[in-house]
Amino acid sequence: MRVELINTGSELLLGRILNTHQQWICRQLSDLGYQVTRQTCIADDGLQIQAAVRESLSRADLIIVTGGLGPTSDDLTRDLIAQLLGREMFVDAETLARIENFFAQRHRVMPSSTKVQAMVPAGARMLRNDYGTAPGLAIEVRPNPFRGDGSHAWVILLPGPPRELRPMFTEQVVPLLLEVMPPSQKLVCRILKTTGLGESFVEQKIAVPLQPFVAGGLDLGYCARIGEVEIRLAASGDDAKKIVAEAEAIVRQILGRLIFGVGDDTLEATLVRLLTERGKTLALAESCTGGMLAHRITNVPGASAVLKCGLVTYSNEAKRNFLGVTAGSLDKHGAVSEAVAREMAEGARHKCGADYALSVTGIAGPDGGSEAKPVGTVFMALADEKGTTVEQHFNPFDRETFKYVTSQQAMDLLRRALLD
Amino acid sequence: MRVELINTGSELLLGRILNTHQQWICRQLSDLGYQVTRQTCIADDGLQIQAAVRESLSRADLIIVTGGLGPTSDDLTRDLIAQLLGREMFVDAETLARIENFFAQRHRVMPSSTKVQAMVPAGARMLRNDYGTAPGLAIEVRPNPFRGDGSHAWVILLPGPPRELRPMFTEQVVPLLLEVMPPSQKLVCRILKTTGLGESFVEQKIAVPLQPFVAGGLDLGYCARIGEVEIRLAASGDDAKKIVAEAEAIVRQILGRLIFGVGDDTLEATLVRLLTERGKTLALAESCTGGMLAHRITNVPGASAVLKCGLVTYSNEAKRNFLGVTAGSLDKHGAVSEAVAREMAEGARHKCGADYALSVTGIAGPDGGSEAKPVGTVFMALADEKGTTVEQHFNPFDRETFKYVTSQQAMDLLRRALLD
Repeated sequence: MRVELINTGSELLLGRILNTHQQWICRQLSDLGYQVTRQTCIADDGLQIQAAVRESLSRADLIIVTGGLGPTSDDLTRDLIAQLLGREMFVDAETLARIENFFAQRHRVMPSSTKVQAMVPAGARMLRNDYGTAPGLAIEVRPNPFRGDGSHAWVILLPGPPRELRPMFTEQVVPLLLEVMPPSQKLVCRILKTTGLGESFVEQKIAVPLQPFVAGGLDLGYCARIGEVEIRLAASGDDAKKIVAEAEAIVRQILGRLIFGVGDDTLEATLVRLLTERGKTLALAESCTGGMLAHRITNVPGASAVLKCGLVTYSNEAKRNFLGVTAGSLDKHGAVSEAVAREMAEGARHKCGADYALSVTGIAGPDGGSEAKPVGTVFMALADEKGTTVEQHFNPFDRETFKYVTSQQAMDLLRRALLD
Repeated sequence: MRVELINTGSELLLGRILNTHQQWICRQLSDLGYQVTRQTCIADDGLQIQAAVRESLSRADLIIVTGGLGPTSDDLTRDLIAQLLGREMFVDAETLARIENFFAQRHRVMPSSTKVQAMVPAGARMLRNDYGTAPGLAIEVRPNPFRGDGSHAWVILLPGPPRELRPMFTEQVVPLLLEVMPPSQKLVCRILKTTGLGESFVEQKIAVPLQPFVAGGLDLGYCARIGEVEIRLAASGDDAKKIVAEAEAIVRQILGRLIFGVGDDTLEATLVRLLTERGKTLALAESCTGGMLAHRITNVPGASAVLKCGLVTYSNEAKRNFLGVTAGSLDKHGAVSEAVAREMAEGARHKCGADYALSVTGIAGPDGGSEAKPVGTVFMALADEKGTTVEQHFNPFDRETFKYVTSQQAMDLLRRALLD
């Protein structure tokens, strides 16, 4: 079964807003076993929307169109699709009453332009809008005139605002799809998240051992994000679960601890979980990451139970006053050094009374580098009851990427220690 | 001139990642006066990518394709497009040397699969990649075999990772486009960035006074982001510069200090600039923002000269130890209170020896709220030589939005003080 998504809206093509519908709808559909094969953005231009829907109908069995159901003059989707499918428009009394009620409940006068939202093409199923005025529409196209093979298709129109679209999709579109076009083969998909190795190194390690699975139907993909690489194992058919599970076992055997999570797991959530399970607390002493470590960890609900304190000691003065870093180490080795990273972690652990303390000191750039310590040089240390471990890394990236990659490496240093 | 954007990547259609390229590239192009008429997402499937590029070539003069230039087996774009255009592939020696050097500089062995990134179609212009291994490509298609009218087109291939794509686009693609296909009418576009007022309030204040300009050709737009609203003033034609400048003067007269910057300015960059200009220093004491304030400010190059220290004092213990917050205030008013916000700011200013100190304490949720202090309650304080100002806000959002909006309000509190 082929599924296509069409997002309408000039603001999307002007780059004024992010197309969050795409990710959200694609994710919902792929989790159900439907495969979206194409997504298209079209401006609020009648003829182009019509052309895009016609093209999609020539290829796909299900077409989901978002936006353009509002009351203003650039909301054209409903009429144009009715025209394309040769359907008459009529006023749906129940929908009109619902829209009138929407305004009455809010003690607002209904603009006359709003009435157009109660116009629906003949034969369409209405999708109730509990959070706005424009109903969605589901139209069965049987047979599909744009494919010569007698097949049929569904066209589903959804309103643009996410707070209207999302509940409508979950509560009404999903049950309809499962009823009228259940996914032919449930897709089994597993995402393994790794950190510490680049994309091609990950591939080098696992591609050959997974070769028999790929030959047997495994869809193997990689996605490199900043500081992490995702491995995607997917399959459909009767053996899908078995194929994916066996492939996962092999990947885990090869990569071991390089895998920090699955699905939507983040390194920070993994850390908070590991610390919570072990009843351990954490302190942070950040120089070059400038608070990003604390920020990422405190994005996780429940972080307050494990994070005792974070110190962003940008200046040498702050490193001395708050962490007890010695003037001797600062003078002799400089702020970006193994010795200072060590003293920062040990100082933070002691001053905050935490079980673990993580420190980072480095040169984020764009300025501040030297020949001996170029921009991108970074030292990080982890202090715990057993002692202190220091690592040196080199992250010659732009400032924000530097901070992110460095925070990723520091969190991974702690993660590995927590697994020991 | 018609421009189409094709984003390749199965992870996009599986809903694994947001398509940030779409917004970013569309934004850059529309600010230059190019109009993107269609955007399409295609999975990493050779035949479908080829079909999509062929379709775009039948309609458009410029086709930008992102993704699929990496070294792994699902990176197919380069080969397929060469095939579609009937171009031979050859090894580009300079690119190969550049890739080898990329690995040598990082003291890493180059995986042999990486070499494929130095293969380029005959006649393509190379777009240097300063932040990764895969170069971009710009291919002139003259004449365009997919349009019968003798017209020509450009196909531009860019790597998927944003940190590689963005500088390549800005530094190499934009100058190329302006040279080989300048926009028919130069668009003059000015973005004014405001904080502290919602979108409809901004519109209420400026829409009527700008009415005559809109009638005279001004394109007036609003874009609400989290914690800020952008006003977009655009015009084309001979008077464009004058129209936009006059409209800007009126908006500035009405909104005054609500405007904190233009274009891509951020509140954090504005703060670092204002502090630097005045030779002043800053300390931060964060509870509920958990380091986000420090993180955002240290994203700005040069922040180290003005930010003395940031203290993420999540626990009461840390508030007492590092900031000198009194047990009395914590007991009597609770950690989320005007009194504690005040003591945090004053403590941070004193302990860090900074000119200004900003503090934030609140309830980010999802847990921790009460009837008197529901999730979203936040107090923030600014201490300087003149005294301490405390503000209370209510930000009942999800955790990450809460942190962002709160950091925005806190930075704006300091910004307004710096302008006094």
